Amino acid sequence: MTIKENQNLSIQTCYSPALYDLFHEDESIVVAVDILRATSAICTAFEHGVKSMIPVAGLEEAYAYKKKGFLVAAERNAVKQDGVDYGNSPLHYIDASVEGKTIVISTTNGTQAIEAAKGKATIVIGSFLNITALSEWLKKQNRNIIVLCAGWKNKFNMEDSLFAGALSEKLLQDERFYTLCDSTIAAGYLYEQAANDLYGFLEKSSHRHRLKNLDLEDDVRFCLQQDIYSSIPILNGNELIKLQAQPQTV
Amino acid sequence: MTIKENQNLSIQTCYSPALYDLFHEDESIVVAVDILRATSAICTAFEHGVKSMIPVAGLEEAYAYKKKGFLVAAERNAVKQDGVDYGNSPLHYIDASVEGKTIVISTTNGTQAIEAAKGKATIVIGSFLNITALSEWLKKQNRNIIVLCAGWKNKFNMEDSLFAGALSEKLLQDERFYTLCDSTIAAGYLYEQAANDLYGFLEKSSHRHRLKNLDLEDDVRFCLQQDIYSSIPILNGNELIKLQAQPQTV
Repeated sequence: MTIKENQNLSIQTCYSPALYDLFHEDESIVVAVDILRATSAICTAFEHGVKSMIPVAGLEEAYAYKKKGFLVAAERNAVKQDGVDYGNSPLHYIDASVEGKTIVISTTNGTQAIEAAKGKATIVIGSFLNITALSEWLKKQNRNIIVLCAGWKNKFNMEDSLFAGALSEKLLQDERFYTLCDSTIAAGYLYEQAANDLYGFLEKSSHRHRLKNLDLEDDVRFCLQQDIYSSIPILNGNELIKLQAQPQTV
Repeated sequence: MTIKENQNLSIQTCYSPALYDLFHEDESIVVAVDILRATSAICTAFEHGVKSMIPVAGLEEAYAYKKKGFLVAAERNAVKQDGVDYGNSPLHYIDASVEGKTIVISTTNGTQAIEAAKGKATIVIGSFLNITALSEWLKKQNRNIIVLCAGWKNKFNMEDSLFAGALSEKLLQDERFYTLCDSTIAAGYLYEQAANDLYGFLEKSSHRHRLKNLDLEDDVRFCLQQDIYSSIPILNGNELIKLQAQPQTV
């Protein structure tokens, strides 16, 4: 593993929002990912016409927005919270009712990942649903990449790591990218083993198991589809907006 | 993945000392591991007759012990520090001079892992060198296991994770053990891919690359040998001692 002269764009993978500061570089682009299900739901919402989403880490903040009249999505431990409008199933957002709306969203892991890098770096939202559109856009930015996995309550999880492996595999096809990051290399190996049957592979993952208990098989199958969407949500101040709507990156 | 009635012993893997508290359970046994090279060196030292080792996190503390007349091993960024007696190459300890001695040790990652769990749980030292002896002993304890990877400056590293995969594979052969921990499952997959050629597999690991630059190939090959030793170091207060010398666990 030697780095060639033209390889000047690094890829890193951070398995836990709690460790983000170890990976931070001012000029990097952070890809926040919570495959099951927050970032898959966010990509789905934008593809179906949501105008913006406001990610908030705390439930109290979400409920405060609700009182002010906002639409609110809130989930904890895979369960939609009382008194809000949406959970974090992507299927909730395949619905004309979201078009043109602003939705506040707070989830167990996904919004915590966004919070960890907020105000520090450019943050875009990744999922299998938009992975090719995202990787093509990333290649055009000429910047280092940090894949920030939401994990499960700050622990490593399998599905976000598989996404990190899949995304880095796409980026590494562009010869300007390289990685010396063991977590990226490991994620690549895992994805290699899983690629032919992501759903089957995740049978052995704890969070996948948790969703199974909650009878959310349809959600899991939905979130593991690749390239059904092309929208790339990007954080602009406190709000996620659709990247195409504002070609100048933040 | 369903847990059978007799499966009551869990295995978890923590990829970073900074996240240990997320995994901690009072009754668990922690296996601290820093394959390249601290825990491999510690196992080697005990196999060659060291009486005890005092792991300390800070260099200042190590130098304070040196002033008091202790033998001291100290390494940072893979380099032996000035004015001490040993680095963390295991080859330094294959030497009659260590017999019966107490050695203070401070390393970049390994002693930080021990520090993270010190005073909270039973801590034993793992390496490929003593992996079967260790797994056989662990099976007799009837307690949950946390593999605590030292990683590299609190980031995931490949070689410690491969050890976690190898150890959990051995433990899971005993039907009382189970895991719902994604990091353990991922480590198992990585080990599966690497098992036939650990050395070759690690060519792609960043820390392995770093050691290569430092011309430490012999150390790497040494540390990847399995089962050449049977000593199990265990932390007793502030001191590592050889487990056989004290069959009552701490």
